[in-house]
Order: sequence, then structure tokens, then C-alpha cells
Amino acid sequence: VVAGLERRSRLLSQDEKIRVAYHEMGHAILSLAFGDTETVHKVTIVPRGVAALGYTFRRPTEDRYLMNRRELERKITVLLGGRAAEALFFDDISTGAADDLDKATEIARAMVTRYGMSDFLGPITFERESTPLLGSHMPIKNADYSESTARTIDSEVKRLVEQALQAARSILTQYREIVDRGAKSLVDLETLDEQQLKVLWNQRSKRASLEAISGV
Amino acid sequence: VVAGLERRSRLLSQDEKIRVAYHEMGHAILSLAFGDTETVHKVTIVPRGVAALGYTFRRPTEDRYLMNRRELERKITVLLGGRAAEALFFDDISTGAADDLDKATEIARAMVTRYGMSDFLGPITFERESTPLLGSHMPIKNADYSESTARTIDSEVKRLVEQALQAARSILTQYREIVDRGAKSLVDLETLDEQQLKVLWNQRSKRASLEAISGV
Amino acid sequence: VVAGLERRSRLLSQDEKIRVAYHEMGHAILSLAFGDTETVHKVTIVPRGVAALGYTFRRPTEDRYLMNRRELERKITVLLGGRAAEALFFDDISTGAADDLDKATEIARAMVTRYGMSDFLGPITFERESTPLLGSHMPIKNADYSESTARTIDSEVKRLVEQALQAARSILTQYREIVDRGAKSLVDLETLDEQQLKVLWNQRSKRASLEAISGV
Amino acid sequence: VVAGLERRSRLLSQDEKIRVAYHEMGHAILSLAFGDTETVHKVTIVPRGVAALGYTFRRPTEDRYLMNRRELERKITVLLGGRAAEALFFDDISTGAADDLDKATEIARAMVTRYGMSDFLGPITFERESTPLLGSHMPIKNADYSESTARTIDSEVKRLVEQALQAARSILTQYREIVDRGAKSLVDLETLDEQQLKVLWNQRSKRASLEAISGV
Amino acid sequence: VVAGLERRSRLLSQDEKIRVAYHEMGHAILSLAFGDTETVHKVTIVPRGVAALGYTFRRPTEDRYLMNRRELERKITVLLGGRAAEALFFDDISTGAADDLDKATEIARAMVTRYGMSDFLGPITFERESTPLLGSHMPIKNADYSESTARTIDSEVKRLVEQALQAARSILTQYREIVDRGAKSLVDLETLDEQQLKVLWNQRSKRASLEAISGV
Amino acid sequence: VVAGLERRSRLLSQDEKIRVAYHEMGHAILSLAFGDTETVHKVTIVPRGVAALGYTFRRPTEDRYLMNRRELERKITVLLGGRAAEALFFDDISTGAADDLDKATEIARAMVTRYGMSDFLGPITFERESTPLLGSHMPIKNADYSESTARTIDSEVKRLVEQALQAARSILTQYREIVDRGAKSLVDLETLDEQQLKVLWNQRSKRASLEAISGV
Repeated sequence: VVAGLERRSRLLSQDEKIRVAYHEMGHAILSLAFGDTETVHKVTIVPRGVAALGYTFRRPTEDRYLMNRRELERKITVLLGGRAAEALFFDDISTGAADDLDKATEIARAMVTRYGMSDFLGPITFERESTPLLGSHMPIKNADYSESTARTIDSEVKRLVEQALQAARSILTQYREIVDRGAKSLVDLETLDEQQLKVLWNQRSKRASLEAISGV
Repeated sequence: VVAGLERRSRLLSQDEKIRVAYHEMGHAILSLAFGDTETVHKVTIVPRGVAALGYTFRRPTEDRYLMNRRELERKITVLLGGRAAEALFFDDISTGAADDLDKATEIARAMVTRYGMSDFLGPITFERESTPLLGSHMPIKNADYSESTARTIDSEVKRLVEQALQAARSILTQYREIVDRGAKSLVDLETLDEQQLKVLWNQRSKRASLEAISGV
Repeated sequence: VVAGLERRSRLLSQDEKIRVAYHEMGHAILSLAFGDTETVHKVTIVPRGVAALGYTFRRPTEDRYLMNRRELERKITVLLGGRAAEALFFDDISTGAADDLDKATEIARAMVTRYGMSDFLGPITFERESTPLLGSHMPIKNADYSESTARTIDSEVKRLVEQALQAARSILTQYREIVDRGAKSLVDLETLDEQQLKVLWNQRSKRASLEAISGV
Repeated sequence: VVAGLERRSRLLSQDEKIRVAYHEMGHAILSLAFGDTETVHKVTIVPRGVAALGYTFRRPTEDRYLMNRRELERKITVLLGGRAAEALFFDDISTGAADDLDKATEIARAMVTRYGMSDFLGPITFERESTPLLGSHMPIKNADYSESTARTIDSEVKRLVEQALQAARSILTQYREIVDRGAKSLVDLETLDEQQLKVLWNQRSKRASLEAISGV
Repeated sequence: VVAGLERRSRLLSQDEKIRVAYHEMGHAILSLAFGDTETVHKVTIVPRGVAALGYTFRRPTEDRYLMNRRELERKITVLLGGRAAEALFFDDISTGAADDLDKATEIARAMVTRYGMSDFLGPITFERESTPLLGSHMPIKNADYSESTARTIDSEVKRLVEQALQAARSILTQYREIVDRGAKSLVDLETLDEQQLKVLWNQRSKRASLEAISGV
Repeated sequence: VVAGLERRSRLLSQDEKIRVAYHEMGHAILSLAFGDTETVHKVTIVPRGVAALGYTFRRPTEDRYLMNRRELERKITVLLGGRAAEALFFDDISTGAADDLDKATEIARAMVTRYGMSDFLGPITFERESTPLLGSHMPIKNADYSESTARTIDSEVKRLVEQALQAARSILTQYREIVDRGAKSLVDLETLDEQQLKVLWNQRSKRASLEAISGV
């Protein structure tokens, strides 16, 4: 999802459409590269309500009881695909990735503080407790851990997110041609369905495919 | 108890069933190894309501007035048995241990801050006081101790939990065969009762038993 | 916008008029130098209500869905144009830039903490959460990150704002003559419209224009 | 007082009775060693309501206007007598000392922050003010002193409590035989009255008595 | 303004009158030295209500839209004139300067955190946001910046205030004779009007005047 | 004033009476030594209500508009006279000085943070603002200054209070004989009036008087 600074009831400019198309193809191609061919079934740059400029539809992988560390890392990587695509094709980044970064940070933080998935911090949970005041109005987070621990948490979250961005960059570079082709179709057609995405994905060069075997 | 990311009213997938079975056997075998043969009387992977994917039933040892340091350390070890089993048999860890980690952290923290069981910190209690505001809505925890003390508390809690995980790992490695066999039965039968657990436990090799004598 | 210490229903003194005129021309010339000839369509030193001593009217660039890093940096630079002009022509700075500094700081902070635009901090969002209490009365910002991270955020914000001030200074120095001429007209006429601004801008010396090519 | 983890309306197990008996004799013998023969007039391991597993009755020394430093140090030492006795006779410590540690910490903290009894910190009072909000619901403690001072307060409190535990240990070691004999009577009789305590105390060996002269 | 510890409805003692007179002349002479001859039009040591022991009347320079850095520095210097005069003539300082110090600190803090007038901190605003809770009862100031930045802010505020005190001291030393003469008249007459102040100021020695040219 | 731990409606023990008498004579003799012969007009060890065990009556020096640094330092010294006398005559200190320490700390803190009387911190006011919430129930003190400044404030307060205790000790040592004699009379008579105090004071040895000339 690309979320802009402010959203008013008007159409995207052509420049914005192009950027959004590459951003969404970033998400989509990473999902496809991770073998989630079934789950990505629609990509669109038709703004949806006030909240999103484009959207990559996935069948909810969240509808599961358990996720393991590798799956969570890939989830972060897919989320950073939009930012990585913008950096790759426009040589500058935009405000449109704000919501993606938020979600990626939240997952990385949960891995570190709730799921015990940082080897540095160990199988411990760290919470600055959040309790609603007067119903659900005010979450208060209290200092249950030291500044020293807070520093380690921050650096572990950073490490997870930066590794994911690095992975997103390297996969999109590998499939650069497909991203480019997909984004151009998306600008023209505004929406790509499951069948069109499969056709696109199957056009990737043998070379890229082979390299992908040793992928992330 | 294995708790998942989100719980909806549907059945576990086969993959999830297998993981939950190993997770629960991790808890059960550690209890048995600590000689709690009487207290573990049922293990199941039938989800219970919204809160748990599996369950290891123990006769409540909490129904006691006093617990000593060694008992608390073992309690933490049993809690980390699910995480240790997942790491041992799946080479990856999942979100399913979140509640276990929470409880283990809470006990370790109480040992350090309430029961004076850390030699580093001494026979002192440390509390950032929690007082209900307007009834019981908002616990406020205030800084009654220094950042320096907070750092020592954090590292003592970490030490206790990591030692327990290390113990869990080494005991489950020792009884690896039994965990494997038990988990497989659990996938088939969904529930093992006291009698079935005793039969399973008695099948452990002589070798493992002997080694257990110098156990944790 | 120049905002003063206190605003009462009286006229500006001649000295104040002159300072405000240079301040506003600082904003206007930076906009023009960045090629926003269309968007700056009026500059005035007629106080508007209680909130502003002068005003540079721009067609809202905010009416967009996305902004990229370079555009945000230029926005900060234009905001600091008033402060830069005062320093250049009066050899002292005034309280009149307070609102500009506030906005510039806010944008730089958002770039660093919300849009992932600091290479140092990475594609992470940092928020000390702000949640309304009892409706929208009290935003509480809690410590979601360490003092160490807070320090890096501060220094990244500082870097962005200081680079922008440096850019503003160097561009205004280049167009010093035009700023001077424009400010003098503004003191006389109180308002310059789009046509007058274009005429002014076209009077800039060839030399300045050429140098501007390698500009910011 | 020995306070357990959770208290339900059932009897203590034999193991728990024994531990509680030694714990209470730890308190009682320290009181007697400090010459408070009159004030300790009953020791019991009959649980009292929900709050206590055993009890050492003392005539209230608190019914005084003034207490000096030495008296407060001895008060802390007596409070730690239960913990010291458990460590001495069971080679492990239990959750039963939690309330004693709380009280000991509170007195040591008051000596340091309210009564100016730490030579390091000087004749100054240190308070993070506690004021009731909306009646008496929420005490807020604010930072009236620096982290550096908080660190010194913590280490002074630790020093006082650890010295007291050391004293408790050394006195109980000296009267080990009496503690043992008293605890055994207590398990049998459940309660010792003033007369029985005097008889017990007078049975202490000459050797121990003589050594006690150079006691704490 | 000299504000005392407590004010009751009684007359000042002779000693207090003398101190207040020197204090007020400190303010007045600094205003005059900065060329504000018009604005200081009355000095008095007749207590005004409960709030002030003496008063130096100035025509409000605050009735302006803009103030520059130099003007703010001088404002701080005049505020510290009372403290400087007490130190110079009594060799001790009193509680009477509390309100002056408060105002001086507030202005220096605003220069640093709101007006971007510290070269160290740059053209940035720093606020620990203050938002009313439940109307206007409770301002909450949150940590929007790091301890490291807080330290720099403190040292910049200190620098500004200490430089101003140094300036106040050196100017009053220069006009020592005039301050002395003025304070003595003030004790006798209780109030000096604009005409009397001009006469006093014109009596300053040639030497002092000449030196003043290279003044602050 | 000597304030005890808890006050009940009973008489002081003989030991307590003696301690209180020395404590009060500590205050009284320091007042006399500072030349406040007129202001100390009664000393008593008759408990007054629930709040005080003894009392030294002084004519209120607070009934003044201004106090200078030296006067505030002496005020702290007199407050610490009770503690100093206890240490001198009993070789141990008691809880009875708690209120004196509180007041002494408060004055020293005000000197440093409100009256600009610390050369280290300069003529600046430092406040962690206290604003009533919902009327006057909850003072919130916010961090308006850095930890580094907090540390300096703490050490300046400590310096002031320790210097005063040192002064109190040395003066009481000088007049040891008078304190002793006065305390003994006080135990007998329970109250000494102005005339009796003058007689006592005039009995001080020539030697002590002469030394006092180079006093504090």
C-alpha cells in the first residue's frame, strides 16, 4: 500500500501514477519471488478510499495460528519492496512508503520484544506495559527495562529491517526487467489480475530464475 | 501452551498440528524428567477456546505456600520446553512460544526483584510501584531505582532465562527419541493421557536415564 | 510568514516593515530559484489577522499524494529563507522566524522518524506514541526508543535543517541584488503580484543565472 | 512472618511446616540475641488468616518516639533472620521471605533518604514526591534528584541490607544449635510461649554466650 | 522589580529600603546606559500590592512585533541589573532577585529553544510539548529531544545569562558613582521621576561616558 | 523541633527526654551563637500536640521581605543543630531530626534552584514545573533540565548542607559545656525561658567567646 501525505478527492497525476505502479510492483514481485504465486491475486493503482494510492492484494497469510522467524523476515521484506523499487527506478524515495515502514518496524519490534527471536536479547519478553486508562483511551507504556536494554532492542530492530531492505533490493535488481514491464502495464491498465501476474512472472529470464535458486 | 498470532474458529493445518505436538511434548518431557510424573496427566493438541493451540495438563504445583529457588528455576525450564523443542526439531522458532516466554520472564523477574534470589542484587526488593488509578484501570510504575540497578536487574533476568533454555535444550536432546515418538503419537491421537505418558516415558533408553542422573 | 512576539491591532513601524519585507523576499526568491515561478503568486507585508506580519502566497504544493526527499529538503530551504535574508541584510536575526523554524523542524523530524529518509537510522519509523486522552485533550508521547536513538534522531534533524539553511544562504547571496530590489518595492507597494514578481525575477543578472545552474 | 505465594484454606504440608518453623526461629533467636528477651513472647507456625504462615510476636518497639541508627540496623537484621535461617538449614531459599525483604528494604531506604543516616549522601532528605491524585488513588513519584544520586541511594540501601544479612547469618551460625532445637519444638508444639522461649534461650552453650559479647 | 520571600502588610525596614533602592537603580542605570532614556520614566521603592518591593517603570518595549537577538540580550542584562547592583554594593546577594532570574532564564531559554538563536543548536525549535489536559489544568511536557540535546540547551542558556550578568556588572561598575547617588536619593525620596532620572544620568562623569562608547 | 517516628498520647521516656533536651539545646545554642539572643525566647521538651517532641521558640525572622545568602546558610546551620548535638553527645543519631533535615534540604535547594546562589549553576532558575491537576491534587514536575544539570544541583545542595552541618558541629563543640549544662536544666525544668537562656549563655567561658570571634 502506498499512502500519501494528504489525500483529497482527486485523481493521481501521471507522475504519481508511475511512481505508485513501480511501488506496488515492488511488493508484488517480492511476493512472487518468495513463491507466493497463489496469494498475490491482484495489483492496482486505483486509489481506494482515503487510505491508499495503490494496493497489492494477497490472500491473507495472517489467517494462521503460527508464523516462524523466516516467514516474518519475508513479510518484512515484502513490505519494504515498495521503498526498494522507488529507490531502484527513481533514484529518490518518497513519503509513500510511510505505512509500509510502520508495519515493517512493528513486526521487527515484535520479533525482538515479544517472540524472543533475537539471539542477543534471548528468550525474554520486553514490554513497556500498555494499559488502557478510562476504557481504551490512553495507553501508558512504562519503563520495565533499562536504557541499556532499550538500546539493544533498537539495534536489533534496525538490523532486522535493514537486512530485509537489503534482500528486497537484491531480489528486485535480479528481476528488474519484470518489475519494469509490470509497472508499465499497471500504468496502462491500472489493475493486473492473477492471470496477468502469472503471465508476467513466467516471462522472467532463465538467468534470473537460476540465480534465484540461491536467493533469500 | 502454544498461543498463535491470531485465532479464528477453524482447524489447525497439518503442519501446525505437528509443530504444536512437538511444542507440547517439549513441556511434557521436561516435567517428566524433573520427576513430576504425577503432575503431568494429560497432553493435547485440541485447541481450547481462543487462547491455546495445545495444552499440557499439570496438577497445580502452585497450590503451595512456598517455592524455593530450584523449583522456580525448573518451572522456567519447563515453560521454555516448547521453544526448545521447536528449535531442536524444526531448526526455526515460531510465534507460538510468546505466552511461555512471557510467563518465564515474569517468574525470573519476580525471583530477582521480589524474592531476593539474585546474589548480585542482594536480599532487597525492587519495585516500580504499580497502583491502580480510578479503580483498577491504570497501573503506574514509578522509578524507585536507578538506571544502573535497572541494568543489573535486566542482566540477571536474562541470565536466569538463558540458563533455563540451555537446560531445556540439553535435557530434550538427551530424550530426543522420546520427544519424537510422543509428538508423533500426539499428532495421531490428539491427546495422550496419564497412562500413555507413563508408557512413553518408560520407553526411554537406559543410556539416557543414566545420563539423566547428572542432569539439571 | 513572519510571526512576531505579540500582535496588537496597530501598524508595523517603518523598521519592522523593512525587516518583514526582506524576510518575505527571502521566502519568495528561494521559491523562484527552485523553479516554482507559477506557485509564488503574491507577496505582501500587510499583516493578516493576528497570526502573520507578512505572507508569501504559494499555490499549495501540499495538494499532492506523494513528496520525495529532494522536494522536502527544498521545502525546508524555502521556509528558512526568511531567517537567511534577515541574517544577510541586517547582520542580526529576530524572533520573526519562530514559526518558520517550527515548521522546518517538523518536516525534518518527519523525514527522519516517519519517512525513513535518514541513511543513519534506516527504513524504520520512530514514534513516541501520541494518543489522545479523554477525547483529544492530552497527547502522551511515550519512550518507544532509547536515549541513544533519540540522540541520533536529534543530530539527523539538525543536519537536515543546517544544510537547508546553508543552501538558503548561498542562493540568497547569489541573488542578493534581486532580494534587495524586491524588498524595497515591497516596502513601497506593500504587495507584489505574480506579474511584478516575474518582472523582478527576470531582472536578475546573467551572471547569477549562469551560476544558478550548478545551484542547489 | 513467612508469607507464601498463594494462600488457600488448607493445611501446611509437613515440609512447609518445617521450613516455616526454622524461618520463625531465625527471627526469634535474633531478637533474643539482641537482648529483647521481654519483647519476644510467642512464636507460632499456626497460619493466621490469609496473610501469614507463621508469626513471631514481639511487644511493639514501634511504640516509641525516636529510634537511633543502631536500633534500625538491628530491626533490619531481625527481619532478615528468616531468610538467613532458611539458607543455613536448607541450603536453598524460598519465596516465603518476600514480605520480610520488603520491610527491610523500606527501613533501609528510609534511613538513607529520610533520616540522613548515610555518610555518603549526607544529612539531606531525598524524595520523589508522592501525592495522591483524585483522593488517594494514585501516588505519583517524581524525579527530584538525579540518576547519579539514585545510584548512590541504591548502593547505600544495598550496603545496609547486606550488612544486616551478614550479621543475621553470623549470629544464627553461632546459635545454630538453639535454632535447630527451637524449630524442632515448634514443629511439634506449633507454638512456643514466653516461658518456653526463655528455657530454650538459657540452654545455649557457654561458648556461644561468650562469643556473643563481641557480637553485632 | 524586587520580590521578597514573603510579603505582609507592613513597611520595609531601613536596611531593606536601602537594598531595594540599589537593586532598582541597577535596573534603571542599565536601561539608561542602553540608551533607553525615554522608556525609564519612574523608579520607586514604595511597595506595590503584594507582588513587588520596588519598581522601575519602563514604557513597554514589548509592544512590538519583532525583537532581534541583541535586544533580547540587553533585556536579560537589564533584568540582572538588580542582582548585579546588590553584589556590587553589599558584597552579598539576596532572595529579592528571584523573579528577575526567572524572567531572564525564560527569555534565554526561548532564544535557544524557540528562536533558533544559539549557533550550537542551530535554526531548530526544541519543545517538550505542553498541552492542556482537561481544559487548561495540566501542562504535560514530553521528551521530544535527547538528554544530550537537553545538556546543550542548558549550557547555552547558562552562557547567555552569565554573559548578561557579566555585562551588567561591568556597566554598573563603570557608573558606580551614579548608581550610588541615585540609590541614596531613592531612599530619601522613595520615587524618582523621568526628569530627576535625566538630571542624575547627566551627572555621570565624562570619563564613564567615553568608556561607555565601547560598551556592551 | 524533634519529630518522632510515631506519636501516641503518652509521655516521653526518660531516655527520650534527655535526647530531646540535647537536640533542642543544639538549635538554641546555635541561634545564640549567631547573635540571635533576642529571637530565642523559650526552649521546651514538653511535647506539643502530635507534631513535636520539643520546641525552640524563636521570634520569626521570616517576617522579612528579603534574606541574603549568609542568613540562609545560618538558618540551615541552626536547623542542623539538633542532629549535630545528638551526634556529639550520644555518638549515634536518631530519627528525630527528619523534619529538620527536610527543611534544611528545602532551603538549600531553593538557594540553588530559585535564588541563583550557586556560583556553579549561575544566576539561573531551575524548575521542574509543578502544576496542579484538577484543582490542587497532583503536582506534576517535568524535566525542564538535563540529567547533567540535575547532578550539579544535587551536589551543590549537598555541599551547602554539609558545610552547615560542619559549622554546627564546630560551634557546638566550642560551646559543649553550655549545651551540656542547658540540656541538663531542660530535663529538670522542661522549659527554659528567655531570662534563663541569657543567664546560661553568659556562663560560657571566656575562651569559647574569644574563639567565637573567628566563628562561622
